[in-house]
Parts: sequence; structure tokens; C-alpha cells
Amino acid sequence: MDDKVNLAEKFASFDEAFAPKIVATYNDNKVQLAKTRGEFVWHSHADTDDFFLVVSGRLTIQLRDRDVELGPGELYIVPRGAEHRPKADPEAHVLLIEPLGTPNTGDSAEREAVPEEAI
Amino acid sequence: MDDKVNLAEKFASFDEAFAPKIVATYNDNKVQLAKTRGEFVWHSHADTDDFFLVVSGRLTIQLRDRDVELGPGELYIVPRGAEHRPKADPEAHVLLIEPLGTPNTGDSAEREAVPEEAI
Repeated sequence: MDDKVNLAEKFASFDEAFAPKIVATYNDNKVQLAKTRGEFVWHSHADTDDFFLVVSGRLTIQLRDRDVELGPGELYIVPRGAEHRPKADPEAHVLLIEPLGTPNTGDSAEREAVPEEAI
Repeated sequence: MDDKVNLAEKFASFDEAFAPKIVATYNDNKVQLAKTRGEFVWHSHADTDDFFLVVSGRLTIQLRDRDVELGPGELYIVPRGAEHRPKADPEAHVLLIEPLGTPNTGDSAEREAVPEEAI
């Protein structure tokens, strides 16, 4: 990456929900922006933590034993291996960090992972 | 980390400039908050990219060939090995990500690195 990323401009450039877009890379990680609407699927990532920072809206990260409620300017890192399901009502804009190659659906068989796409 | 991090609350809990505080870890990386006032020192990190996200204020990341000007909601990743000097006038609040163990002053001999401190 050779230039800065304006999050608001990037969020304005796509509309699809649960389809994270890569806006930068940090070492071997992808920095992604995602719009979330409604419920995603339960999944986990055996080999990596999962970084969530809410930029706007409200996001609930359901864990098996509790819910983590995030508003703008709040972050939560799902520990590796922890089952989780993100959901937003109606919509949240989220900055995510995961290692390159990590499928957004983790180990879920319910839903197909989206291809890695840079914007 | 077992709970969410509210960035505004964490920023309100310290005042020192150029002394990043660890608020979470993501894999082997530290997620840090820093207040920046005035100029830091020129430095580089040979082995890692350097993630900057401005939360409030304006931050200039001087590179040897140009300046990157960041406002709230803008991020820039300094490529590994690139000499840079952050500066803010009067102050910026910044989220940083670097591998655990990375000194905030990189290879600079001008200034001593601060200890890694979690808040």
C-alpha cells in the first residue's frame, strides 16, 4: 500500500453485507472493512485471533457464553478457537484484521467464504 | 483479553505523549493507543510494518520523500524499513499495531524506547 486509507470513503464504495474488502495489508494480515446486517453464521478460527473495531452502528458478537456489544470506537478481539457469531441490527461498519488467507466463515459449513477482494 | 475496549475511555485514562499503551493483543501483536504532540524522532522498523489509525486530531507521518497527512478515520501502514517521523500539532490520538517486543523508537539512538505497558 502506498497511500492512506480513508475509512468513510471506502465504506461508501460498496454495499454488500458480510463481504469484507481488503483496504491494506499489515505484515501478513489483511485489514478489511465489512458491512454487517442481521446475523452471520457461527464459526471459529482455530489458528488466529479475530480483530473487530466498530466504526459506526452497533455490532453484537455472540459468544457461546455471552454477548459482546460494541458501539462506535469499541474493539474486541475474539480469541483463536472461540466460536462466535456477529450480528447487527440494522447495520454496523466494522474494521477487521485477520491473517491473509483466513476465510471469513472460519470453520463453518453453513455458508461459503467470500473471495479475498481488495478495494 | 476478555472484554471489549472502549477507545475513548482508554484515551481518557492517560496523558503522556509518545508513550503507547497496550489495550489488547491480536496474535503476537500489541494493539496500542498513543497520544502524539509535536514531533517524535525519525526511526524505522526493519522487521515489521507499522499500523497507524487516527482516532482524533490530525497526524502527519513524515517519510523521507513526502508527508502523509491523516485525520480521524484515516489509516496508513508504514512499510517495514521505511524511515518515518510522526508529528501532531497540537495533538492526535492514534491506534497503533506492532508486534509485541517492538520498541516504539525503532532503530533510533536519539530517544529511549518506553517500556511496554498495558492499561
